[in-house]
Amino acid sequence: MNMNGAQALARTLADCGVEVCFANPGTSEMHFVAALDETPQMHAVLGLFEGVVTGAADGYGRLAGKPAATLLHLGPGLGNGLANLHNARRAHSPIVNVVGDHATYHKCYDPPLESDIDGMARAVSSWVYRCAHPSEVGRDAAEAVAAASRGVATLILPADVSWSRGGKPAAPNEPVPLETVSEQTIESTAAITRSGQKTVLLLGGTGLGQDGLAAASRVARATGVTLLAESYPARLRRGAGVPAVERLAYRANDALAQLGGTAQLVLAGARPPVAFFAYPDKASGLVPSSATVHTLAGNEGTDVVDALTRLAEMVAADIEPALAPASRPACPSGPLTARNWADVIGALLPENSIISDESLTSGMATLPAATAGAPAHDLLSNTGGAIGQGLPVATGAAIACPDRPVICLEADGSAMYTLSALWTQAREGLNVTTVVLNNQAYAVLRMELQLVGAQSGGERANDLMDLTRPPLDFVSLATGMGVPASRATTAEELAEEFEKALAEPGPHLIDAALTAQS
Amino acid sequence: MNMNGAQALARTLADCGVEVCFANPGTSEMHFVAALDETPQMHAVLGLFEGVVTGAADGYGRLAGKPAATLLHLGPGLGNGLANLHNARRAHSPIVNVVGDHATYHKCYDPPLESDIDGMARAVSSWVYRCAHPSEVGRDAAEAVAAASRGVATLILPADVSWSRGGKPAAPNEPVPLETVSEQTIESTAAITRSGQKTVLLLGGTGLGQDGLAAASRVARATGVTLLAESYPARLRRGAGVPAVERLAYRANDALAQLGGTAQLVLAGARPPVAFFAYPDKASGLVPSSATVHTLAGNEGTDVVDALTRLAEMVAADIEPALAPASRPACPSGPLTARNWADVIGALLPENSIISDESLTSGMATLPAATAGAPAHDLLSNTGGAIGQGLPVATGAAIACPDRPVICLEADGSAMYTLSALWTQAREGLNVTTVVLNNQAYAVLRMELQLVGAQSGGERANDLMDLTRPPLDFVSLATGMGVPASRATTAEELAEEFEKALAEPGPHLIDAALTAQS
Repeated sequence: MNMNGAQALARTLADCGVEVCFANPGTSEMHFVAALDETPQMHAVLGLFEGVVTGAADGYGRLAGKPAATLLHLGPGLGNGLANLHNARRAHSPIVNVVGDHATYHKCYDPPLESDIDGMARAVSSWVYRCAHPSEVGRDAAEAVAAASRGVATLILPADVSWSRGGKPAAPNEPVPLETVSEQTIESTAAITRSGQKTVLLLGGTGLGQDGLAAASRVARATGVTLLAESYPARLRRGAGVPAVERLAYRANDALAQLGGTAQLVLAGARPPVAFFAYPDKASGLVPSSATVHTLAGNEGTDVVDALTRLAEMVAADIEPALAPASRPACPSGPLTARNWADVIGALLPENSIISDESLTSGMATLPAATAGAPAHDLLSNTGGAIGQGLPVATGAAIACPDRPVICLEADGSAMYTLSALWTQAREGLNVTTVVLNNQAYAVLRMELQLVGAQSGGERANDLMDLTRPPLDFVSLATGMGVPASRATTAEELAEEFEKALAEPGPHLIDAALTAQS
Repeated sequence: MNMNGAQALARTLADCGVEVCFANPGTSEMHFVAALDETPQMHAVLGLFEGVVTGAADGYGRLAGKPAATLLHLGPGLGNGLANLHNARRAHSPIVNVVGDHATYHKCYDPPLESDIDGMARAVSSWVYRCAHPSEVGRDAAEAVAAASRGVATLILPADVSWSRGGKPAAPNEPVPLETVSEQTIESTAAITRSGQKTVLLLGGTGLGQDGLAAASRVARATGVTLLAESYPARLRRGAGVPAVERLAYRANDALAQLGGTAQLVLAGARPPVAFFAYPDKASGLVPSSATVHTLAGNEGTDVVDALTRLAEMVAADIEPALAPASRPACPSGPLTARNWADVIGALLPENSIISDESLTSGMATLPAATAGAPAHDLLSNTGGAIGQGLPVATGAAIACPDRPVICLEADGSAMYTLSALWTQAREGLNVTTVVLNNQAYAVLRMELQLVGAQSGGERANDLMDLTRPPLDFVSLATGMGVPASRATTAEELAEEFEKALAEPGPHLIDAALTAQS
């Protein structure tokens, strides 16, 4: 068969195991769209905005452990997808990010949509390649899939390379194996854990699944080291039957308190801790001056679980991990506040659910404890700090795991960045229950205004953090995109609506109106 | 007074005549937000998404003829604003694009939100500068305002430069004058227009205001040259009492027909015409092989109106321009279709209105004729092809011209990219009437799929252009953001709702349900 480049791309991606393409195509991608017709094994999922497409690919990658493809239209399409690709980069999520471009010979005319795709792509990708010839597109696609095992791999596909004949599908590349940590490193880490000095084992990345946590817990029980998790994990397993690990706090002062007095800081899939933002007269790095930093396993391309397991075998051969007991908070009552809503979730969270958490200030103080003993679940956090991630990541996670309940806990301000993810959820019939924590404010900025020491209290400054004029009605917004929605103003109402949403198939949204705490 | 950098920035921008700051701030911008409290002459306008912020700044710049400032949060905030900055770049809109960054000393820790701001900014800016010291921020701001007269000027403001003392406001720079076209060029162009050969005068940029069009019309009447306007003007004056000029068509074949047989193509503020996209076996450049291209006035930094006026004085001293007569279509009746809706607008368009046009396929064939004799108005088109521009540009235009009615004609698919512009319209009480042309499809892609010659008709390909599952209810969406809305399914209903919306203050939205044409 005489394929064109687009057909070779679609076929190769499918042969390499890419089953989903999250797409918001334009003219230059039409041949790839046509090629999808002949690739029934690839599920094309339409997003109404590129930030939905890239965020969904991130959520899919975190759960599926293999890449979805995206399909974006030229520089502006990539631009719209950059923020969630930034988060995906920080999550090390596998993504084959396909960006269509003008025909090679068309670019020199500088048509209206021409822009520097390569430059934008480099800011968020670990691998960028521009296809040059239809006969090579298959090979390029196989390499992109292999490169995606290390993060965002961007493949730029010019329209004429796409539509010209001579495409040749390629077989999958050999997977690049994870790097195994040397025996010497395991031994020296073992010695540190046994040193009797105050030692923190900071876990991150793939170390935060059931197996990594179990191994780390055994080490902790055997040696007394303290376990901590990175602040914003791509995917953290937690709940009843899972070893509990506290996350390093968002606020620098709180994180410094957690790390205070540490003599040995051992990294296992995590980076050295750093303050999320700089603040006047505060340190940026959060490694205490008392501490020496050791790396058991790096956070890119290293087999963290293997390293933790071998360490556990060495220092805790006969020790079992400490598993969190099953325990739920009582369902609260009365008006909803930032303090009590999380207990509703903890009381009712279903088995083996996935939580996409972008609750920000509304959940920071309460969500971890409220769900610590709930049925075991996966928590997906905002790895890169670019808000507008929660709804798309939930969408992609639900595509990857159609049989698991997905709960999206979403701040009101953040929800507005990529709200049309709801439409994709409705279109695909996804079992996502979104709870919008509606405090009618950019509450995180009110907190930050104080933290950075800016003069504040001024009416005009505060006005820029106020979302009451007009209030956002998420019931109306969700309904407008085909997602059934309801409002809860009390804990009882939230419980009732949450249970109802979980019991019914397809997406639901609950606009949880939080009242200011007295 | 001992200012910090942020205060020096706010004061200098205000002193340079910047009256509006479209903002979506984050932690690193808190000191600038606080400084706005002390700068009451600057109106801070909150957007819930950065694409709204940058698009509004574009619309403001097109109407005000001077820059607004933006305020964006780090790389992801800039990323979300890139698509509409791309359009602004193509419009040559003046914008001072302020992007906050981490503190200088914080960046080396590679915190979660760190990314390559400079690289992203260069893709859309004609000027990029990174502030280095509070004492220089005033000077930097004055230079940014001056640079913005040529397009998007991006000023990157690190948090510590913002909060550190030693800020010094600066006086405005001398404005950079427009380049005046040489007498020799005027003379040689005059000779071309008198040559008797088929000559097209292609107008663009500032040549498309009342004065430029009047001069061009005089030249046309005196010499017989054909006038055409660039396909996607930033701002085109048209309607009763304005010389009429046809725009170069979107479709390459149509544009080639308009230009067929041209011997002399004279550019006045326009670039040489190019196809929007490449198509297999079609030319990219649209200059006919028969034509020689001459530049009367370039499209950047040249005084186009002066050049046209001097040309008119030379070849048409006693000739008056041909002004379009007042003439409105009859108000149609029956079910709304892509063919009849524009006549409702033409029949009812108010005096001196501003049209933000992103109606795409729904308006392409009908809107120009339907409004050709309506009261004089300004038309703002999508200059860069990145959809999601219409609503934000309308928002910024309404901020610049609070006393003029703003009409936003918006395709349904495009509306979903930056829909939260409606919330800003409600918050600011702007007189914007949005008509969503709701054909439940990415209709432009259905057309393009045929044009590029992709094999089509396949169910899965067509599904990616279908917006019926679920249908988008724009009444519900607008209401959820505080904008009163209604639905029209017939021409009579559209007329009734349009008149009602124009009569009431504040924003309104009409969901115009287009039925397929029989």
